[in-house]
Amino acid sequence: MRWLHFSVGGRTAYGIIEGETVKEVAGNPILGEWEATSRTHRLGDVTYEVPIIPRTFYAAGLNYAEHVIEVAKKNGVEPNLPKNPDMGYRAQNALIAHNENVVIPADAGEHIHYEGELVAVIGKKAKHLTPENALDCVFGYTIGNDVSERTWQRNDRTFWRGKNADTFKPMGPWIETDLKLDDNLITTVNVNGKESLRYHTNHMIFGVVTFLVAMTKYLTVYPGDVMWMGTDGTSPNLKHGDVVDVSITGIGTLTNKFVREGM
Amino acid sequence: MRWLHFSVGGRTAYGIIEGETVKEVAGNPILGEWEATSRTHRLGDVTYEVPIIPRTFYAAGLNYAEHVIEVAKKNGVEPNLPKNPDMGYRAQNALIAHNENVVIPADAGEHIHYEGELVAVIGKKAKHLTPENALDCVFGYTIGNDVSERTWQRNDRTFWRGKNADTFKPMGPWIETDLKLDDNLITTVNVNGKESLRYHTNHMIFGVVTFLVAMTKYLTVYPGDVMWMGTDGTSPNLKHGDVVDVSITGIGTLTNKFVREGM
Repeated sequence: MRWLHFSVGGRTAYGIIEGETVKEVAGNPILGEWEATSRTHRLGDVTYEVPIIPRTFYAAGLNYAEHVIEVAKKNGVEPNLPKNPDMGYRAQNALIAHNENVVIPADAGEHIHYEGELVAVIGKKAKHLTPENALDCVFGYTIGNDVSERTWQRNDRTFWRGKNADTFKPMGPWIETDLKLDDNLITTVNVNGKESLRYHTNHMIFGVVTFLVAMTKYLTVYPGDVMWMGTDGTSPNLKHGDVVDVSITGIGTLTNKFVREGM
Repeated sequence: MRWLHFSVGGRTAYGIIEGETVKEVAGNPILGEWEATSRTHRLGDVTYEVPIIPRTFYAAGLNYAEHVIEVAKKNGVEPNLPKNPDMGYRAQNALIAHNENVVIPADAGEHIHYEGELVAVIGKKAKHLTPENALDCVFGYTIGNDVSERTWQRNDRTFWRGKNADTFKPMGPWIETDLKLDDNLITTVNVNGKESLRYHTNHMIFGVVTFLVAMTKYLTVYPGDVMWMGTDGTSPNLKHGDVVDVSITGIGTLTNKFVREGM
């Protein structure tokens, strides 16, 4: 099932996508409370909204070997592969939806990069998960673009503007509830329609299950939490006007244009 | 004005504290939507709730010179005072209210510390704030205890369990809207009724105004966001059964008992 968060006619709602139609529901399916309505819309007529503003916004950070090795090479240091599934965080202010613009601050440097990522959306309150039941708390999957300004990321004490400036966290286009985490999943990133990166989505250092089991030893996950699972490879420097598509097999494509503030 | 978030008779609401009485309102005053009701309660009869689950949970981290210098001395390294107001983050899952127990995980080490902090609660959506208007977006102030497990904090790649395990972020007891950030403010921390720490709350390296101006150059703050402003001094190792009170002049006292899981 494919859940869309959308606006139309001044109203924001969730709906089920069937072909080119959105069947509007009342309530929030991620929080487990919804019922059907008689309202339907053409998919092309609605505005995409951020699928959910998470309660806690988790992000794995370094979670693909190639990305860690390439970044280390660029910085002239030894690659330091993470030894444990230590989950990180991103900030809610930075979220934007499919088709919204990433606005690069006027004084940002030239090293503006995409990071196309699988996102797991939590649908059940859970603690002390096991490898056997961990995925039961996952409502579905969407796509994230962990946009980064590398100079700020490297030099600031935190990621507050290097990764969490307004508009730096596109997420969407929708949530797919039927997805198998296996070798068939491929993440591709296109820049201006040309393929820029391709990798096996599920070839993570620590997978969704491993993270959930480790995290929930100490913390409770809640409906609406999201876990961004990290990226492989590296990005070219993105410029004013570039359009970035992040696609994952079985989910869809998250598209955002990059514009520089004041241009 | 003093706003309490509380539960009574299976209902959760906000109310205005007047002496020993809570005047219940409908709606959420932090989000700017509330109206009076005819219901009142005795303060002693209600259960305190977390004042707000923030949209984005900001935390300054190192923000008092003495704390930075003492921590560096303990670790045998040179103190590295932050050069810029680079805001950090904490996680919503960890929040608990006044009077709730901090539960130390069974396998945590002995270095369990308090950090008593001033918390600014945002009440208005704002960007590009100036030194003159920055405080206009602040709804009021409360108190936070940034509980930390120092071994995990030092050795993990992120603060996911060292600072964000469930129950590690007590916040409350209420929000005070009439507070002047000046030299009269004193933060004191008592352990089992005995004074453990005392410092000038407003003697921060970077104050609330400085952070808000710097942050909102790149990001939007929203009603319900909270900013934890860091701590001075250091804490003794807290043990099962210890009761920690964090008090700030003009706000009140946040009290939480520390218990070790399984004891």
